[in-house]
Amino acid sequence: MANQLTIIGLKGVPMVQPGDDLTAITLATYAESGLAPEDGDVLVVAQKIVSKAEGRIVAVPAVEPSPEAVALAAEVDKDPRLVEVILSQSRRIVRHRRNLVIAEHRRGWVMANAGIDHSNVGPDDGIERVLLLPVDPDASAEALRQGLMDTTGKRIAVIVSDSFGRPFRCGTCGIALGAAGLPALIDWRGHPDLFGRKLEVTETGFADEIAAAASLVQGQADEATPIVLVRGLSWSAPDKPAAALIRLPEHDLFR
Amino acid sequence: MANQLTIIGLKGVPMVQPGDDLTAITLATYAESGLAPEDGDVLVVAQKIVSKAEGRIVAVPAVEPSPEAVALAAEVDKDPRLVEVILSQSRRIVRHRRNLVIAEHRRGWVMANAGIDHSNVGPDDGIERVLLLPVDPDASAEALRQGLMDTTGKRIAVIVSDSFGRPFRCGTCGIALGAAGLPALIDWRGHPDLFGRKLEVTETGFADEIAAAASLVQGQADEATPIVLVRGLSWSAPDKPAAALIRLPEHDLFR
Repeated sequence: MANQLTIIGLKGVPMVQPGDDLTAITLATYAESGLAPEDGDVLVVAQKIVSKAEGRIVAVPAVEPSPEAVALAAEVDKDPRLVEVILSQSRRIVRHRRNLVIAEHRRGWVMANAGIDHSNVGPDDGIERVLLLPVDPDASAEALRQGLMDTTGKRIAVIVSDSFGRPFRCGTCGIALGAAGLPALIDWRGHPDLFGRKLEVTETGFADEIAAAASLVQGQADEATPIVLVRGLSWSAPDKPAAALIRLPEHDLFR
Repeated sequence: MANQLTIIGLKGVPMVQPGDDLTAITLATYAESGLAPEDGDVLVVAQKIVSKAEGRIVAVPAVEPSPEAVALAAEVDKDPRLVEVILSQSRRIVRHRRNLVIAEHRRGWVMANAGIDHSNVGPDDGIERVLLLPVDPDASAEALRQGLMDTTGKRIAVIVSDSFGRPFRCGTCGIALGAAGLPALIDWRGHPDLFGRKLEVTETGFADEIAAAASLVQGQADEATPIVLVRGLSWSAPDKPAAALIRLPEHDLFR
């Protein structure tokens, strides 16, 4: 909780390439923005640049579609090679219709196209490429957190964010795919309300709310700002990775 | 979009009573916080104080439970009078289990207990009370927006926020029940990405992301800050009420 937050889109993030050092990039964007890392900073980093740095790029022409991918591609009117990539990242296909596949990603996220991203995947050499999600976004967040700690000595939390479509509600919303150095989920059970009664809200999706806030400055289009600094947050709950935000089907009364 | 946002929990919000003037209360909290209203301010007001001001309070002892409520109450182990209130606000019960009813509220929100709130409903006179959602949160937001405009001459947008549990993800997240003076939903279709390709994200839940951001300072417990000021946002999309965020079942591939 906090009384005042500042959310700053850090400047000067370069076009990230496979193998790039996100710690060095992040520190350069702090400097470019005239800021220095501080204890308690929370950095929200768009999944896209994490995936690029991790080399999670697939050249579509090199993909050999399976018969299953060919069949689904015909149903949804997509490139079978793209559908093959989606299937390779998925546990199961939840629903589909023309131009859209909702998949349960291997790591449990239910999302459009298993998170395969088709926009902003350069270079502009005429070869079609797509971007997969990071292999383990909590580990990606932890690696950046550790890199920043080793270099600066500061306690900085990291969230790897994405935008998800949602059941029941229109419009995507920023969410946390990965988190390190903060509680992705906060348990409020037993805290008293204003009148001393037990609170009815049990858990808040802390990292998702931070990712949603950062999404307001990350942007969608050509002014994209993939590294966002959130200042002013504090918490007392123990650290918890973003994997804790995935609701198991057997506990999900909304499904 | 914005490069820097400031999110401020306004100080000195009193215990709101039925009939209270939210415009006057909001202006007093600006003053208490040493701030003056500015064009472009976005105020996120917790549903709870809107409902209280609108007198949406039900005294539980006065409720006469229907046979349907008695039957459901036995299944979920809740007070039949409370279940009666939930049913009165709902189109249908989506799912239920011990101590939890997921309902589709009359206005289309799918949420725990049809939004009936049991905590922080004073006064502390021993009579159990619950709080219903505002009758029309978009209208509530518009009334406050208009009141602030009439009094100050400033263009101030208003969101009436709540916290929702979510399918697929653990933890509640702030969402917009009502909105006025901004686009609750932004349509990005046709905007180019960094390489000039068409963006794949189609719509963003702008007001939901703002409500989630505000939730980080609104708090859950005794330090609650129900009026939050967001500064630094800008947008070019046309105004759209929060009703636009409700996804119709026939368009909802996630269900």
